[in-house]
Amino acid sequence: MRIVLKYGGSSVATVEKIQKIADYLIELKKEYDEIVVVASAMGKTTDGLIKLAKEITSNPNQRELDSLMSIGEQQTVTLIAMALTAKGQKAISLTGFQAGIKTSGVHTKNKIANISSERIETLLREGNIVIITGFQGINNSGDITTLGRGGSDTSAVALTVALNCECRIYTDVEGIYSVDPRLYPKAKFLEKISYEEMMEMANLGAGVMETRAVELGKKYNIPIFVGKSLSYTGGTYIMEKDIALEDKLITGISVTKEIIVTNISNVPFSSENIAEIFSTIDECGLNINMITQNINRYMRVEISFSCQASEKYLLEQVVEKIRAKFSTCDIELNENLGMLSIVGVGMINNSGIAGKFFTSLSKGNINFYQVTTSEISISCSIDRENIEKAVNLVAEEFSL
Amino acid sequence: MRIVLKYGGSSVATVEKIQKIADYLIELKKEYDEIVVVASAMGKTTDGLIKLAKEITSNPNQRELDSLMSIGEQQTVTLIAMALTAKGQKAISLTGFQAGIKTSGVHTKNKIANISSERIETLLREGNIVIITGFQGINNSGDITTLGRGGSDTSAVALTVALNCECRIYTDVEGIYSVDPRLYPKAKFLEKISYEEMMEMANLGAGVMETRAVELGKKYNIPIFVGKSLSYTGGTYIMEKDIALEDKLITGISVTKEIIVTNISNVPFSSENIAEIFSTIDECGLNINMITQNINRYMRVEISFSCQASEKYLLEQVVEKIRAKFSTCDIELNENLGMLSIVGVGMINNSGIAGKFFTSLSKGNINFYQVTTSEISISCSIDRENIEKAVNLVAEEFSL
Repeated sequence: MRIVLKYGGSSVATVEKIQKIADYLIELKKEYDEIVVVASAMGKTTDGLIKLAKEITSNPNQRELDSLMSIGEQQTVTLIAMALTAKGQKAISLTGFQAGIKTSGVHTKNKIANISSERIETLLREGNIVIITGFQGINNSGDITTLGRGGSDTSAVALTVALNCECRIYTDVEGIYSVDPRLYPKAKFLEKISYEEMMEMANLGAGVMETRAVELGKKYNIPIFVGKSLSYTGGTYIMEKDIALEDKLITGISVTKEIIVTNISNVPFSSENIAEIFSTIDECGLNINMITQNINRYMRVEISFSCQASEKYLLEQVVEKIRAKFSTCDIELNENLGMLSIVGVGMINNSGIAGKFFTSLSKGNINFYQVTTSEISISCSIDRENIEKAVNLVAEEFSL
Repeated sequence: MRIVLKYGGSSVATVEKIQKIADYLIELKKEYDEIVVVASAMGKTTDGLIKLAKEITSNPNQRELDSLMSIGEQQTVTLIAMALTAKGQKAISLTGFQAGIKTSGVHTKNKIANISSERIETLLREGNIVIITGFQGINNSGDITTLGRGGSDTSAVALTVALNCECRIYTDVEGIYSVDPRLYPKAKFLEKISYEEMMEMANLGAGVMETRAVELGKKYNIPIFVGKSLSYTGGTYIMEKDIALEDKLITGISVTKEIIVTNISNVPFSSENIAEIFSTIDECGLNINMITQNINRYMRVEISFSCQASEKYLLEQVVEKIRAKFSTCDIELNENLGMLSIVGVGMINNSGIAGKFFTSLSKGNINFYQVTTSEISISCSIDRENIEKAVNLVAEEFSL
């Protein structure tokens, strides 16, 4: 039997944690004769490397940044392999290029193009536990690449596809809850969640797993287990939606505590201008969530978009560039907002969910501003001070 | 014009130093249209990585240790490339495998087998300053390898050979002195030194450049410039011996302040037993300097060898293993010694140097114990407390 296990940064943050993972892997080897481990950089290593790059220049060369960031994972995998071999277990670490993980795209945001798994297969047959760097690969030019935030989840699922086996993602939370239990202690633990709901939850700030990894799981129909590292109870399966899942109207609430909503008005209407604004956002690398657009009676566009408050430094670059391009436009930032979303595949076949959602908010006299919807989610921005109250009201309303 | 520059760990220890090196390289690009930089890990990074490995296990897997240690240099080269590109200079970093540095041998002590320099040549033609990781390469199995202590010097000289150009090694000292100026402030600065003398000096603890790099320079007759990073005055050329050099009897004094001399007696005489002792030393990775051997009238061997006091932990492993193998032997450690050597190609054609050397020591009532000689050097162990006095007496005697 073969399995891919992924350990996130907090799970491998110390030498002690790595030793315990090694002990667990040796136990697991009795059950699974072929084990592949995908590991992230220890704790905040990657952030430290980015900080170092920023000390050199505020705008580091992206190819070089990729090569710099990749060393964090290389450190982890060698230490896990050392811990295993010291305990008498055959093990070997592989970096992205050694594992045959080929990528394409732009630096710091590469996508996995394919995996040549021959070397992994050979090493597994020889009895090794194979420990592979997450987050990284190599492109056609022979340059080291990285897969963007949360890329290690994607590495793990892609390797699971290539190796045709089971997949477990170990992290610092027990699995997926209907609502963040820190905000709503009565939140229900979910033993199963559909790919689609998980993707919405991830996009909307649930932060347990990267959307791209879930998408890949859905594409190849691979059930992904998400559980707490070294706990081995509980855990949530992300898998195809089944009837039981569809019975529920709403599966979960997703919260982003601190967002900034930017309103841009008075832009002359043309699709070119709007495209220009969103290209600028993209160029600066700003991740935006909710987008709403209106055209007023003077044929001038009003655009609003939200982003994480932590990305304010990127937003400021965006604002500066947009001001330079459209001298007539007005730009306004609202920084006291959070975002609340409800997610559920049950929404597809049920009208009235939006009404129920907004009613529960209004019962608490909670104002909501921007509203966006997808097939299986509704999101709105609210004042930060109202978040906890809103979560409680909505969770009660939908019995989460 | 083409040049290879090597920067050691202390030269790239901080972001500020890296920025200054970048400024210098941009200036130098006006003079040399093709520049290759070889860089070591920042400051004590490699020691930190080894410490981390030792926290996992006292005896880390050597393949994994190589992969772990290699990340230090990868960090430096990406930061230098970022600093250059941020200042508007085309630049690119390459790791050992990207630069085509193929190695062979055992992990942590690999040798460069060959360099496939096509990618470097292409990048240079495109106007890039190419920054390459020292100390590392890749073997036939696709595993990352390192070249052992001081390996970055070897990388630089090997790349100089492959690229057929000039070579400068930048370090934290101004060049080579006849005697360590911290011990003998009147020491003469050497503008030139022969490969042979430099190798002896390096072996005998002068510590400026690795012997293997000098050996490679000699083999391909490449003059190696050694100078202080960011100082750009002074510097020593290591090159073929010329008539001027041979005029001097002695070129320099080399000192190792703290050595341990180990005496092993009462080993039954056979070449097999002696080979066994030195194999054990090799297995444990202990570097030894002076070796002397005698056979007493009972046909029992007495062997003495010296090592750096900093390697006592390795010596202890050696002693333990030898005791296990030869239960009858006596092993004695003398820890209060230092080593003094005089080096000079002039010695080859001049008798009486040894006499002059020992006389100058005896003038100061300095006892010397073990004595070893090579064609161009004489070394002896003396009490640590006498080192400074001995250096002064010998330096005066030979007008260094």
